[in-house]
Amino acid sequence: MSSPWLSHFTAQSAAERVMWRCDTLAEISEDSDQLTRVYLSPQHLRANTCVGEWMREAGMQVWQDAVGNICGRYEGNLPDVPAVVLGSHLDTVRNAGRYDGMLGVLASIEVVRFLHQQQIRLPVALEIVGFGDEEGTRFGITLLGSRGLTGTWPESWLSCQDAQGISVSQALTQAGLCPEGIGRAARTPQSIAAYLEMHIEQGPCLEHDDAALGVVTAINGARRLNCVFQGTAGHAGTVPMTQRQDALAAAAQWMVAVEQLTQEQGAGLVATIGTLQCAPGAANVIPGEVRLTLDVRGPEEQALTTLLANLLSHGEQIVQARGCRFAAEEYYRIAPTRCDDGLQRLLREAVTQVQGRAPALPSGAGHDAIAIAERWPVGMLFVRCKGGISHHPDESITTADVGQALRAWLAVVLNFGENSDLRVGV
Amino acid sequence: MSSPWLSHFTAQSAAERVMWRCDTLAEISEDSDQLTRVYLSPQHLRANTCVGEWMREAGMQVWQDAVGNICGRYEGNLPDVPAVVLGSHLDTVRNAGRYDGMLGVLASIEVVRFLHQQQIRLPVALEIVGFGDEEGTRFGITLLGSRGLTGTWPESWLSCQDAQGISVSQALTQAGLCPEGIGRAARTPQSIAAYLEMHIEQGPCLEHDDAALGVVTAINGARRLNCVFQGTAGHAGTVPMTQRQDALAAAAQWMVAVEQLTQEQGAGLVATIGTLQCAPGAANVIPGEVRLTLDVRGPEEQALTTLLANLLSHGEQIVQARGCRFAAEEYYRIAPTRCDDGLQRLLREAVTQVQGRAPALPSGAGHDAIAIAERWPVGMLFVRCKGGISHHPDESITTADVGQALRAWLAVVLNFGENSDLRVGV
Repeated sequence: MSSPWLSHFTAQSAAERVMWRCDTLAEISEDSDQLTRVYLSPQHLRANTCVGEWMREAGMQVWQDAVGNICGRYEGNLPDVPAVVLGSHLDTVRNAGRYDGMLGVLASIEVVRFLHQQQIRLPVALEIVGFGDEEGTRFGITLLGSRGLTGTWPESWLSCQDAQGISVSQALTQAGLCPEGIGRAARTPQSIAAYLEMHIEQGPCLEHDDAALGVVTAINGARRLNCVFQGTAGHAGTVPMTQRQDALAAAAQWMVAVEQLTQEQGAGLVATIGTLQCAPGAANVIPGEVRLTLDVRGPEEQALTTLLANLLSHGEQIVQARGCRFAAEEYYRIAPTRCDDGLQRLLREAVTQVQGRAPALPSGAGHDAIAIAERWPVGMLFVRCKGGISHHPDESITTADVGQALRAWLAVVLNFGENSDLRVGV
Repeated sequence: MSSPWLSHFTAQSAAERVMWRCDTLAEISEDSDQLTRVYLSPQHLRANTCVGEWMREAGMQVWQDAVGNICGRYEGNLPDVPAVVLGSHLDTVRNAGRYDGMLGVLASIEVVRFLHQQQIRLPVALEIVGFGDEEGTRFGITLLGSRGLTGTWPESWLSCQDAQGISVSQALTQAGLCPEGIGRAARTPQSIAAYLEMHIEQGPCLEHDDAALGVVTAINGARRLNCVFQGTAGHAGTVPMTQRQDALAAAAQWMVAVEQLTQEQGAGLVATIGTLQCAPGAANVIPGEVRLTLDVRGPEEQALTTLLANLLSHGEQIVQARGCRFAAEEYYRIAPTRCDDGLQRLLREAVTQVQGRAPALPSGAGHDAIAIAERWPVGMLFVRCKGGISHHPDESITTADVGQALRAWLAVVLNFGENSDLRVGV
């Protein structure tokens, strides 16, 4: 399947341009000493202008859609053919890294730029979307950009407010958009063939596996629970060990079980207790109550359900033996998103072509692909990031890895042209 | 040894009077809706006046000493004989119970009252001291009353300040005492033969053992440490279980070991982790750092040292296996206080006389006896309290148990007279 065009692609200079453009976008921030760029802010609009200019220079027709995504289209070899959308987001968390989101948008521009230079037209159109909100930093609701394309904004979103009391509706107006017109961002099912997203891994698996690139099998589902262990507070000196109902001792026993049972079940499952508070919380008082959060994630819904039931039943056993009480309440749930099998195969072949092998891994973090997968098949390529660090200024990738990623990305796109049987959803 | 006088003692009515007087003192509080009475406050002085009046009525000569303790003396059968001091404290924690401290003072008054009514004079004098500060609520330093008798106030104490910036020195002056004269509260070694303290247990052991009374073997020593587990913070979704350095998972494993190893070593040892903080402390972030406090207590110094070394070495093993780090720093240490063997025997005999058996137990909480034991032999009698609860308005004892305690207390005092070989330190 190896395309003859791939040998003409100068990945090194394209990768250098991507890195330089990531640096350029990182300067567009509401803070001078750290990177923070939120949905519908002046910085967001400036980033859109900048990225739109790069898209235009790469040979694309450019527009900003009705929810503030910056979009470019490179026509196929026939008019009005469905598009393969290459996308990721341009918004950031507070004090962010410079690659989370931006890499996928800027890398995709390089692929179109090459096709344009070589005057290659494919049987599909290529679109690039720089989504305006994935992180949810400003309004506490996430995936506003990609849910613009799917047309699945709940009514309630327009009245959500940021920390300054500005609603989404007001922010749209301030950005020159029209709150009544957001439906115009929605795309018809037939207009898009597939969605592909390149993103930094945000985890340590590829680094651990000594690989620059990996193919995502699924975006993990997640459930979060507030848990409470209740025992009996008491004097740390006067209550013998055998007569205690120590809520923290019960919680500790459970935390050990959570780690062990999650490892035993395998299947890409992870469980995290990230917060814990003791009451009354004095050095000389036996804790009477412990509140903690449990976060479990995994690529398969059934495995998540099984794990969680197992963890909760273990908690119950522990408190029964100790004369304590245990309760847990789920406050957040998102189902796993499967990546399309055909797109996974296409990505696997392309990654094998440039890297010799194609590690498969689930995504632990959420992505725009979650929303898009409700309408269209999605595929994702992960790029190794240093130490698995993201959402932090220390976020780091290498130009060499970006070069590999660009070669794989180009191979995938070319294969869409050369293997029409691999085209998905058309 | 059973004294013929004991049969004349109407323990029930004396116990009712003790309970009523505990209620009366509980009204003397800086807050109208809860009991708080701190050292050198107007409430402290009012309580002294009230207790002094009850002492006087019981046949004692009464004075307030140079550090604000209320003292009464009931002479022996010869002038200037050494005194057996019966004491406890009249100050409270904030939102306190009404028996912690006060019970010992008011019960002792009943014993003297009976001797006076029966015109019994012993070969020792009896003194009662209501100490002005044991809890340390006001100035953050403890045992100011009993260290007045031993004459071991450090110089620095006079300048310690309360929350309003009032120093101990100023507070003494405001209470009509003289900061330069505190040395006058000190007693000569020869003037006191022994110290006996009755106190509520503040723990559940006697209730668990179905006994009203128990004899204290030692006041536990304690050590407190600030501990920190350091791992690597990470994304709760992207870092596989096998690649984590989860500081809380390490801490949990250690907390389970702390409980287990302390139970295994036995010897009256207790270990408590009363506070724990996770950083960064978000539901979706693997904890990179956990800070917690360890409180270990026990009646024997060597056993404490052994336990602590064992716990710390276990912590080290756990973090080594996990690629984390562990550090612990001791910030508080108090050595165990042995109760005098002769006084324990005397108490054991008296308790057996009234209760049929004499459970022995260590004291997990601190008491005035700790300071007094630096100069004189000390013995302690514990009275069952409901649910082991203290330092709380729910602190509760029964009139029947107080009756038993008064009978034992009287028996101990009479035995001082009738068995001169049991007299300690004279």
